[in-house]
Amino acid sequence: MMEKRVYNFSPGPAVLPLPVLQEAQRDLVCLPGAGASILEISHRSKTFDKIITQAEANLRALLEIPANYRVLFLQGGAILQFGMVAMNLLRDSGRPANYLVHGTWSQKASEEAKTQGPVNVAWSGKASNFNRVPKPGEPKLDPRGAYVYMCSNETIQGVQYPTEPETAGLPLICDSSSDLLCRPVDIAKYALVFACAQKNAGPAGVTIVIIRDDLLACSPANLPSLVNYKVLAEGKSLLNTPATFAIYIVKLVTDWLIQQIGGLRQMHALNQRKAKILYDVIDGSAGFYQGHAEPWCRSIMNVPFRLAKPEQDEPFLKQAAERGLCELKGHRSVGGCRASIYNAMPIEGVQRLADFMQEFCKKNQ
Amino acid sequence: MMEKRVYNFSPGPAVLPLPVLQEAQRDLVCLPGAGASILEISHRSKTFDKIITQAEANLRALLEIPANYRVLFLQGGAILQFGMVAMNLLRDSGRPANYLVHGTWSQKASEEAKTQGPVNVAWSGKASNFNRVPKPGEPKLDPRGAYVYMCSNETIQGVQYPTEPETAGLPLICDSSSDLLCRPVDIAKYALVFACAQKNAGPAGVTIVIIRDDLLACSPANLPSLVNYKVLAEGKSLLNTPATFAIYIVKLVTDWLIQQIGGLRQMHALNQRKAKILYDVIDGSAGFYQGHAEPWCRSIMNVPFRLAKPEQDEPFLKQAAERGLCELKGHRSVGGCRASIYNAMPIEGVQRLADFMQEFCKKNQ
Repeated sequence: MMEKRVYNFSPGPAVLPLPVLQEAQRDLVCLPGAGASILEISHRSKTFDKIITQAEANLRALLEIPANYRVLFLQGGAILQFGMVAMNLLRDSGRPANYLVHGTWSQKASEEAKTQGPVNVAWSGKASNFNRVPKPGEPKLDPRGAYVYMCSNETIQGVQYPTEPETAGLPLICDSSSDLLCRPVDIAKYALVFACAQKNAGPAGVTIVIIRDDLLACSPANLPSLVNYKVLAEGKSLLNTPATFAIYIVKLVTDWLIQQIGGLRQMHALNQRKAKILYDVIDGSAGFYQGHAEPWCRSIMNVPFRLAKPEQDEPFLKQAAERGLCELKGHRSVGGCRASIYNAMPIEGVQRLADFMQEFCKKNQ
Repeated sequence: MMEKRVYNFSPGPAVLPLPVLQEAQRDLVCLPGAGASILEISHRSKTFDKIITQAEANLRALLEIPANYRVLFLQGGAILQFGMVAMNLLRDSGRPANYLVHGTWSQKASEEAKTQGPVNVAWSGKASNFNRVPKPGEPKLDPRGAYVYMCSNETIQGVQYPTEPETAGLPLICDSSSDLLCRPVDIAKYALVFACAQKNAGPAGVTIVIIRDDLLACSPANLPSLVNYKVLAEGKSLLNTPATFAIYIVKLVTDWLIQQIGGLRQMHALNQRKAKILYDVIDGSAGFYQGHAEPWCRSIMNVPFRLAKPEQDEPFLKQAAERGLCELKGHRSVGGCRASIYNAMPIEGVQRLADFMQEFCKKNQ
């Protein structure tokens, strides 16, 4: 099996740690002690209770989540959260919401919010093609705002906040889908952080929501249960059947982060090394490869780049795939190339990509 | 591995066909031709496109779904559908909705709908402890209603419609979570059918929605995308990352239904045989075991029963488990026992349960 696996640079669903896949495979027909597959056991069984409890405990340990935050495992992906944030916190608030728009996903979130209430685009990077996040002092926040919204890492443009933006005391809401668990983060600076799992935390199908207790009081009573943070939090992720298998994989991935990697400080150092390998090749290519983001805010998770001659995109991607370096095509909305190098991408894969990039540059310069 | 597996009578997540689990296990680390796990591949890859296309084609073939219906693979389970039905079809309609309430799930759905608009409970079985569905002529439908809502099989009470209720021409909405794919069904009688997968169709985490084209025009523009049927249908289940692994399992389960079982007529005949084995034991026990539903509408999927002496529940469940007959405890809201005998429960498991029930009855009468 092993030799058939490629280096998968997909932006998500994305590469998972091999030991996680191997454990899931070993136990797929019969989870030890359960007499049945993880796919078949009740979400209210003792076996599953242990799994979801451990998944939450792992996240709390890794992210040092304060006790006054709930951890929820929901469905629907980040885009359902775009809607839920606005339905719960904007719609009946009588206030506008501040959105920082610095890429495809924060823009999409602001559009979803507009269906529920007034949106103040406090800063937009559209004019510079979303190549950076705002600098301190740039956002024009409405001080009456219900909240400030950001996306900590824009998967498509490859821009990432080096640190949290100022909010003038307003609650900070963060889509951290493509960088949660890539580095330590001070959860206390946020009112709500959400992340779909299929980048660093698991497979598609589960979304992690970390929400501060006091925010739950905002949820209007006229919201159906499954989009109501208050009701979902009261149900402790078990209001109805959650995505049991996906949560099981989140448990295995966070086990791996703790036991094999040693925690988020170690993971961050490794991610920085991986990203530097690629950015060094881009920066040292005399313009053959061109990055997208301004260096001070470029992402350590998603590295988009273009070849100076667009007609070389296709041979580049083809030759890369022949070497087992796959899913390097840029997002259909922007083109070019992109290497997503999430936690589970081994440094060997990144090094092999860097070597190929240098080889291709030499041959085609 | 095999000898460790029990007969799992869980109401859901529930038993899956063993060949499905074995194929998923074999390919979990590396899906043939993909170079990566099904958990790691892009939802926009050719490999996944084939999987979701085949899953839909299988459902269309098995259920003979007419061409003017969309098939969507959504997240959030049935309870999100309770809310979405009302958000899309009731909230801005200026009309009430008719609910047929004949068990825990139809009642819950009617409560969720009340958050969005006026609900006419057209019939309620509460007075008789939800032991049957309405008979023709009993429901008092509001003819101005936006729709008529039913649950084709009540998982907890074990009541199932023998045939569709009359709707006086109003659109019929059906929660078929625990009996979709158990028998042929005339989809053309419904405007919308939904079912979470974790009973007959796959694992938890994906919900199948079959919706007639003309209903899409009802969705209000001020609904966030992920709860808006129109937007979801336009996105063809790929508006954002769907639950890729769960959809893959739905594909394998429906492959199994077509290739191993031969279709829904064959599946129905087998399910009727399985159910008859258990009901015969209950009916022939001279009151030692007591069923819940009236015989004309009892479910072939969920068989709830009580022991005449409630103090025998615990030894019954304990001795059953010792024989590998597991998850027979009734729902926490009603107590007693329940055997869920979905498509994937082999007839041998049902026979073994029947044998044990007779043995226990003889010893403890």
